[in-house]
Amino acid sequence: MAVGHEWSGEITREDCERADRGDSMASFRDEFDLPDGLIYLDGNSLGVLPRGAADRCSAVLKDEWGTDLIGSWNKNHWFGLPARIGEKIGRLIGGGDGGCVATDTTSVNLYKVLGAALRLQAEDAPGRRVIVSERENFPTDLYIVSGLIDILDKGYELRLIDGPDDLDGALGADVAVVLLTQVNYRSGALWDMRATTARIHAAGALAVWDLCHSAGALPLSVADSGADFAVGCTYKYLNGGPGSPAFLWVAARHLARAESPLTGWWGHAEPFTMAPEYAPAAGIDRFLVGTQPILSLATMEVGVDLALRVDQEELRRKSLALTSLFIDLVEQRLPGHPLVLITPREEERRGSHVSFRHPEGYAVMKALIAQGVVGDYREPEVLRFGITPLYLRHVDIWDAVEVLRRVLDEELWRSPEFQLRDAVT
Amino acid sequence: MAVGHEWSGEITREDCERADRGDSMASFRDEFDLPDGLIYLDGNSLGVLPRGAADRCSAVLKDEWGTDLIGSWNKNHWFGLPARIGEKIGRLIGGGDGGCVATDTTSVNLYKVLGAALRLQAEDAPGRRVIVSERENFPTDLYIVSGLIDILDKGYELRLIDGPDDLDGALGADVAVVLLTQVNYRSGALWDMRATTARIHAAGALAVWDLCHSAGALPLSVADSGADFAVGCTYKYLNGGPGSPAFLWVAARHLARAESPLTGWWGHAEPFTMAPEYAPAAGIDRFLVGTQPILSLATMEVGVDLALRVDQEELRRKSLALTSLFIDLVEQRLPGHPLVLITPREEERRGSHVSFRHPEGYAVMKALIAQGVVGDYREPEVLRFGITPLYLRHVDIWDAVEVLRRVLDEELWRSPEFQLRDAVT
Repeated sequence: MAVGHEWSGEITREDCERADRGDSMASFRDEFDLPDGLIYLDGNSLGVLPRGAADRCSAVLKDEWGTDLIGSWNKNHWFGLPARIGEKIGRLIGGGDGGCVATDTTSVNLYKVLGAALRLQAEDAPGRRVIVSERENFPTDLYIVSGLIDILDKGYELRLIDGPDDLDGALGADVAVVLLTQVNYRSGALWDMRATTARIHAAGALAVWDLCHSAGALPLSVADSGADFAVGCTYKYLNGGPGSPAFLWVAARHLARAESPLTGWWGHAEPFTMAPEYAPAAGIDRFLVGTQPILSLATMEVGVDLALRVDQEELRRKSLALTSLFIDLVEQRLPGHPLVLITPREEERRGSHVSFRHPEGYAVMKALIAQGVVGDYREPEVLRFGITPLYLRHVDIWDAVEVLRRVLDEELWRSPEFQLRDAVT
Repeated sequence: MAVGHEWSGEITREDCERADRGDSMASFRDEFDLPDGLIYLDGNSLGVLPRGAADRCSAVLKDEWGTDLIGSWNKNHWFGLPARIGEKIGRLIGGGDGGCVATDTTSVNLYKVLGAALRLQAEDAPGRRVIVSERENFPTDLYIVSGLIDILDKGYELRLIDGPDDLDGALGADVAVVLLTQVNYRSGALWDMRATTARIHAAGALAVWDLCHSAGALPLSVADSGADFAVGCTYKYLNGGPGSPAFLWVAARHLARAESPLTGWWGHAEPFTMAPEYAPAAGIDRFLVGTQPILSLATMEVGVDLALRVDQEELRRKSLALTSLFIDLVEQRLPGHPLVLITPREEERRGSHVSFRHPEGYAVMKALIAQGVVGDYREPEVLRFGITPLYLRHVDIWDAVEVLRRVLDEELWRSPEFQLRDAVT
């Protein structure tokens, strides 16, 4: 059992060791190849390497590509991969009888489902021309909206809100779609998907959810929550590998009418008749477009399979135990430093990462990384620590906070090398 | 020297062996892992495995992902991969000072460049609302046009022609863009890119070229040929691996104004400032969208590097020698069978594959594959043989035709197992 926030008084490393001994999820750590001596708190940006991934990737490369070659489309079921892996992700996110495919990137998938959602609304409620989203949403989500609005060129507009309290005020009769990322990439703040979707539907709009920081990080039931569309990536908490293909989910009630603006061969009803006219496949496959990167796609399945073995409620308990532990330890052991917690303290409003502002955030994070504690930095001033319950221990949190204490107490971040900006932050 | 069509009288296997001994490109065959006993004539659908690909893929998986983890974006230059590999492909296709990136799929890239081209024309020549293409184009190219026309919803239309002779008649004052695939996926017919682009420009339209069956198969000079935009895949003649990311090229004169409808984080001018407003990058990077599948992308570079080592004129000579040899041998050794050559006999109108119609084409191809000669079948009735000069020998062509002779003479295709359709043809 992960205990995290249940202990009283000053937390010791021994407390953390004891909690690890009682952790029923502890064995999952052995399923990953973790670099020695590294405390990796960036699984919400790029997950770690599952032990089975190298063999799977090598088999796809040598046996499927190298030996079976073009025959792999049938023999090794390449054609069915987006649907097969999508079905697994669908189960993981509680997709119910909706459809899910693994394909393309989150951004491209968002373009498809937003295009489909706006088209549905154009038929059912033609006056609605507003897309509501959060100013603090993933920027790429907002960029996709912007590109879509431009090409539609019909007076669609993006209305940005600053958080949950602004939502009702923004939900006018002109709103077609609300696009929200369930867990904020910077603060870790969590939207209540069910309650929020109900508010969105009550206002006559459709709900599109970005699950990039949710899938594999907390229990999801997108179908029961009433969501209309969802997208997400697989390279964060699902440990699918760098840039592994994303997923896309559509509620069953929309499957027959939802049409993607990106219409390619893999989404055709009869892709091998080579007809010049497009006819969408009957189900979720209509959201497939071009030929997928098989090495990345097939390798990603290993991470998804691992995620499916985890009890999601247990995962959530450990996630909250570890994020609470991180917050508690920072407050106990690092008083007097200008660290401002921007992650919600209420557990029901928290995803699976913890973020603090610090005026020297960029240099502090580089100093931490140099000491073997890998989190990341997000503008402005934000130190972000991803807490992946699958492979992190309570002692990792204790050790990480201890390194943070040393970096701040000893002002290690002042070293000139930590002031220099990298190309990618 | 590849000789193919220079010999006189009946061609023998010894003639082919002699030609192979004189083949200055022969050593490239050793750069690939070819399955024993297989004659692989489907490199125009999925290229073979370069010997260096396994090591590269394994290093990316184990060292870059497994060990360097998120640090790979800087340390292992992941962020620059689409541009670095794109620059190499740009050199290979004669992209001049235009911009090229490796990213996404051909279909998605086509959507981007068609969207950009139509936007340019909407500004410069707003009355033009017709996209001209070939009825025999890759179906997915036509599907992409169809999806784009639907979302634009401004009376754009697709005008299909049946071949080069119809082009001038179709080039009215209403034509915005002409989209052509340089080498027809079925017949292998080759468009003259320079002359055709000149005709398109003379009519006031922009030329978008699909190079899926061209890149790595024949010398290209897209910039000198006057092309406006180009896309293509890397898993055919470039041997990049199954579904490896595609490429996208934009002429230098359009770079500053060309805007993609798919606007994502990787195409932003300052992707790490996390601004809510989209601002396109200055150059070709603006056509990047979401996070790319790094395993597939990085592994693909091995095939591109190999292609860059080949003299493209020499490649073309050998390609024509082998395709001519295939045609000559079929005509000499398989008279009396209902095989109809649909590939142009004139070399300057031929790509790098050879296709024949046969009323039992599907079963004939399955029988060939069962005998170790792998081509593919395309509706309707077409036997397609991809001739990749990098790893094929003259004796492979001789042996393949000999197997085809036996399949037809002995009517091996009549076996019931060869009548059953696979999921993927």
